[in-house]
Amino acid sequence: MTPPAKPAESDTAMIVVMKGTATARETGAVLQSIEGLGFRPHISSGEERTVIGIIGSERKVDPSAFEGLAGVERVIPILKPYKLASREFKQEDTVVEVRGRRIGGRSIVVMAGPCAVESREQVQETAKRVRAAGATVLRGGAYKPRTSPYAFQGMGRPGLEILREAADANDLAVVTEIISVQDIPAMVEFADILQIGARNMQNFNLLEEVGRAGKPVLLKRGMMSTLEELLLSAEYILSTGNYNVILCERGIRTFEKFTRNTYDVSAVPVLKKLSHLPVICDPSHAAGDRDLVPALARAGVAAGADGLIIEVHPNPAVAKCDGAQSLTPDQFDALMKEVGAIARCIGRSV
Amino acid sequence: MTPPAKPAESDTAMIVVMKGTATARETGAVLQSIEGLGFRPHISSGEERTVIGIIGSERKVDPSAFEGLAGVERVIPILKPYKLASREFKQEDTVVEVRGRRIGGRSIVVMAGPCAVESREQVQETAKRVRAAGATVLRGGAYKPRTSPYAFQGMGRPGLEILREAADANDLAVVTEIISVQDIPAMVEFADILQIGARNMQNFNLLEEVGRAGKPVLLKRGMMSTLEELLLSAEYILSTGNYNVILCERGIRTFEKFTRNTYDVSAVPVLKKLSHLPVICDPSHAAGDRDLVPALARAGVAAGADGLIIEVHPNPAVAKCDGAQSLTPDQFDALMKEVGAIARCIGRSV
Amino acid sequence: MTPPAKPAESDTAMIVVMKGTATARETGAVLQSIEGLGFRPHISSGEERTVIGIIGSERKVDPSAFEGLAGVERVIPILKPYKLASREFKQEDTVVEVRGRRIGGRSIVVMAGPCAVESREQVQETAKRVRAAGATVLRGGAYKPRTSPYAFQGMGRPGLEILREAADANDLAVVTEIISVQDIPAMVEFADILQIGARNMQNFNLLEEVGRAGKPVLLKRGMMSTLEELLLSAEYILSTGNYNVILCERGIRTFEKFTRNTYDVSAVPVLKKLSHLPVICDPSHAAGDRDLVPALARAGVAAGADGLIIEVHPNPAVAKCDGAQSLTPDQFDALMKEVGAIARCIGRSV
Amino acid sequence: MTPPAKPAESDTAMIVVMKGTATARETGAVLQSIEGLGFRPHISSGEERTVIGIIGSERKVDPSAFEGLAGVERVIPILKPYKLASREFKQEDTVVEVRGRRIGGRSIVVMAGPCAVESREQVQETAKRVRAAGATVLRGGAYKPRTSPYAFQGMGRPGLEILREAADANDLAVVTEIISVQDIPAMVEFADILQIGARNMQNFNLLEEVGRAGKPVLLKRGMMSTLEELLLSAEYILSTGNYNVILCERGIRTFEKFTRNTYDVSAVPVLKKLSHLPVICDPSHAAGDRDLVPALARAGVAAGADGLIIEVHPNPAVAKCDGAQSLTPDQFDALMKEVGAIARCIGRSV
Repeated sequence: MTPPAKPAESDTAMIVVMKGTATARETGAVLQSIEGLGFRPHISSGEERTVIGIIGSERKVDPSAFEGLAGVERVIPILKPYKLASREFKQEDTVVEVRGRRIGGRSIVVMAGPCAVESREQVQETAKRVRAAGATVLRGGAYKPRTSPYAFQGMGRPGLEILREAADANDLAVVTEIISVQDIPAMVEFADILQIGARNMQNFNLLEEVGRAGKPVLLKRGMMSTLEELLLSAEYILSTGNYNVILCERGIRTFEKFTRNTYDVSAVPVLKKLSHLPVICDPSHAAGDRDLVPALARAGVAAGADGLIIEVHPNPAVAKCDGAQSLTPDQFDALMKEVGAIARCIGRSV
Repeated sequence: MTPPAKPAESDTAMIVVMKGTATARETGAVLQSIEGLGFRPHISSGEERTVIGIIGSERKVDPSAFEGLAGVERVIPILKPYKLASREFKQEDTVVEVRGRRIGGRSIVVMAGPCAVESREQVQETAKRVRAAGATVLRGGAYKPRTSPYAFQGMGRPGLEILREAADANDLAVVTEIISVQDIPAMVEFADILQIGARNMQNFNLLEEVGRAGKPVLLKRGMMSTLEELLLSAEYILSTGNYNVILCERGIRTFEKFTRNTYDVSAVPVLKKLSHLPVICDPSHAAGDRDLVPALARAGVAAGADGLIIEVHPNPAVAKCDGAQSLTPDQFDALMKEVGAIARCIGRSV
Repeated sequence: MTPPAKPAESDTAMIVVMKGTATARETGAVLQSIEGLGFRPHISSGEERTVIGIIGSERKVDPSAFEGLAGVERVIPILKPYKLASREFKQEDTVVEVRGRRIGGRSIVVMAGPCAVESREQVQETAKRVRAAGATVLRGGAYKPRTSPYAFQGMGRPGLEILREAADANDLAVVTEIISVQDIPAMVEFADILQIGARNMQNFNLLEEVGRAGKPVLLKRGMMSTLEELLLSAEYILSTGNYNVILCERGIRTFEKFTRNTYDVSAVPVLKKLSHLPVICDPSHAAGDRDLVPALARAGVAAGADGLIIEVHPNPAVAKCDGAQSLTPDQFDALMKEVGAIARCIGRSV
Repeated sequence: MTPPAKPAESDTAMIVVMKGTATARETGAVLQSIEGLGFRPHISSGEERTVIGIIGSERKVDPSAFEGLAGVERVIPILKPYKLASREFKQEDTVVEVRGRRIGGRSIVVMAGPCAVESREQVQETAKRVRAAGATVLRGGAYKPRTSPYAFQGMGRPGLEILREAADANDLAVVTEIISVQDIPAMVEFADILQIGARNMQNFNLLEEVGRAGKPVLLKRGMMSTLEELLLSAEYILSTGNYNVILCERGIRTFEKFTRNTYDVSAVPVLKKLSHLPVICDPSHAAGDRDLVPALARAGVAAGADGLIIEVHPNPAVAKCDGAQSLTPDQFDALMKEVGAIARCIGRSV
């Protein structure tokens, strides 16, 4: 995959909106014209019309170069600092497709599994139970970013193999965290969705390389990051031409101490207003306490989240990490029923 | 009302749990014994048994003084810094009764109205509309705590009269903010629930005087206050013998700038776990943007809140304060339908 | 003292700048003109010229009403939300005089003493020691705002008498916290500077009543208050005609847990840039740990603070509050030497 | 360089304290014994005695294996979560030597230069001026981590060459930020100190690889990272056997908006108490406003910082990044005089 032309120090961008009646040939001519000027076109094909994004510096992107082309309805600037992530670029919700699951559509997607992969048995048992309860994506960490160098750092590649095997046996997709560009080949081989964790949300090199890997990306909000920064980090991925980005609220750092982080449920309606990307919630890391997870999961769905990612462990008391916030499979069953009820009463499903 | 005996520098408290078979005479003897030692007894009569709280310093409260009394099952210490507010003191949910409304029970209570009372017409119209949509308490500020001394400070007593009149005409109770002890007599005359605002959550003198006024109190969490501090401020009111306290989450201050404050929806399950007091949510002040209010209101109810307090203005564009976050009556109608649906699917009603 | 004319809902203000040659009669005529229009004039007499502030709503303050008057050089608007507190209103530093001490001038003022008044002996001993080390103001709380209703609430009026007696015996001024308007008469009788604590920074009723009491006010920044909000709270006091306000940085609430609060030393240069009011630092409450107090005190003075307020206790181990952050008298001696050295090397003295 | 033995999931560590009279042979025997058990020994040779750190899991590190060895005085556990970074491991201050400069000793080190390398002329001019004013390390970014993918990302390797050339011509060392492991070879070739920026403080992979590169590391505190987390990130580097780590406070994220970040000057005394590593301050990034930089620089030195890192640009108005917070060379001259005065009055020098 070729890296995109990245214009130096630009803060403007344009959208070329094609007429509803524009032909494929007309659209192709516009794309050629954009590439001819040294830009990379970003295409968003909606139901009614196609729009094409051009990112450049003000000096270089001259709207008049496109306004006269056949099939072009109008050329409009994107004023937000994030461009491809904005609702201005794409008005319809993005739906990310992963092995037949549609993330960002009417149905709410639930990702579940242990914090860390510890053994084949642990993952197999968890996968079976969360699948039975209605989850469609299996989560689990093979490479763990730990605050202390002396804490368990994950099983590495064998952990990925265990995840893949358990997912395949239970018709689940796999989401797992990537913490280093060196691990991309193994990730691409075994995972369906690559997760960028909170601590790496502004590891821009990782964002770009993961973007180029072409797989859907789950981008978690940093503990210290504003929603605008989250969208700008998404923009790093989108600007590589990888448009399959899922945003995730997982709690921010505040003075309050009863919860591990403060679950910023407002992030859901704000992000849905500003961006077309799917938004999911991680109540487990925000709460840090399994007793609070069901209430926060319900709140996230009620606020309009497109999905949830939940930590489930067959025996939380012996978990190698995050045991205190992991649900048992039985608790997860109960949660899924509650979440399903909330989803239905706002016109969605699980 | 006599102020309670306030022991100097105590951090311990006891609960005397009476037997289920204890007679009124036995309970009376325990109360006499407590008062004889110079303490004020706090009684909580549950369905199965009565418990009596004694707050004192470690030196003074000697459990053996009560353990032998007739009808006493056991004497246990309360270890939390808040005592009467804790679940340890009272396991059953407190239900605050206000003119026939039950706050803290199965039904979710919605309080609605303008930020500030501006005119009779404004309040009358709002009252009629919110009542029709299902609200049972009318909110509105007659005395406004404003960051700037040059901002509109409220209509004062005439504002209280307007609120009372509109509430009576529409079968609503009145909640309104009190910002000074001097205003207590007028407040007691016209209001049903006295609100302590976020900026006064640690105005301990006001807490005590409002507690002694005997009316139910709506206590808002300070923008900078931990949940433990909120419960300790509630304790100031409870310790005057006024047990009708409603807690309110209204957003805390963080680095995020898209919302006026960060709506800490986790406060709901945390407070319900730690305390028996009713908990409501104020999505309007947290969001600062009416577009976000419905999502946050739904999230609060889904998380288990006992009610909502919502700003509604017949014409937000001309509101003297908080216009940007006020719903129109039509938007409030739509919100009530959504909230009702969420409430029902978790076994509650509006 | 008559309360000021408080215009409803204004966000503008004007400054009438008198010519350097203006006579007292001309200035008097301007003042009469302002009062005749129903405003309260606020006078700031600098070395070269007098300026007069008028706070009103845009509708009411018409610059042309003053521009033609004899002795008037020009009329200019104050655009900041705080008016009388701004450098625009008064360019020279305000010096607050308290029993011959000048706070805000070249010399750095140190206020020291225990968190709470506990006994005559404790205060006498502390006063003697801090005076010998170079402090000129005695601090100590007689009325304590405590998070818990069961914590030591202060000795009350007898505590004020103890402070006054110890101060008089050692040629010290007295600063002490006021937490309720009911206590104003006793405060005015015994104290020289009335302190508004962090939790009451937005208790606007208290601000106004303390302002009207006419004594110098030490206004502490709230734990979650912006600097703009601090200046607006100062404005509440200034707008009563009481111009003797001292601002105090005492730490804000953040996620960091090693310190009780985060000492925002940037507040010093920011406040000195925006306002003419004196700024002092309270490293004791920020640190919460006596080992850190000297470094933070030095940092405050190096950043340009006009003074310090420090907790000193003859025997911190038995202090009724804040023992962990109180210096011993010997530690305070050492601190004063360090602070004096820093002050001298930036052209100031202690 | 061989990666260290990293024990899985350990939270304990031991220090073997050698007798003052221990011979090199005895110390060698202890090291062999440690390696024989599969651990990597970490040696700290103080003036009076040598201590050897062993990091392992509780199960594996058995103190009795070392207590009986010749020359061993005692074996004591390190209880803090960070081990090699703790004062318990090493009581004497660490001094990092870089081209003859001693960072962490009596003399305060000043690093200065532009935010980003923009041209040879810009860097040459800045280098000359900051050297003349007393700086001994040249800063400047060749690889810039930018929030937006469309902002200037730095000159890359040519930028490194420019820095090296200007530094060599002016007898300066070079510190520059590394944002990706791919850049390590170029960094090692051109830079003297490798900077880990705030956004990468928990990019653990980068920490380890930079640690292994063997060059001194300047580790900046994350905007929302606790001091304990900063020390744990330092531990990632130290545990590779690279003991030349310099910590840097650069402001944390809070609700206050007048400054870009809140300069947590308390970090200086806290870190000096907890750790033996040198601590410097970056007032430029904290302030975000050049008017505030001198006050914050003075405050940092007064609080005990071992150095400063300051942004200086020959023409801030045209800077490609951070112009608002860059000092002019003349302002830097004035700052160095102030800082020198403060340093001397606390027994240090610049």
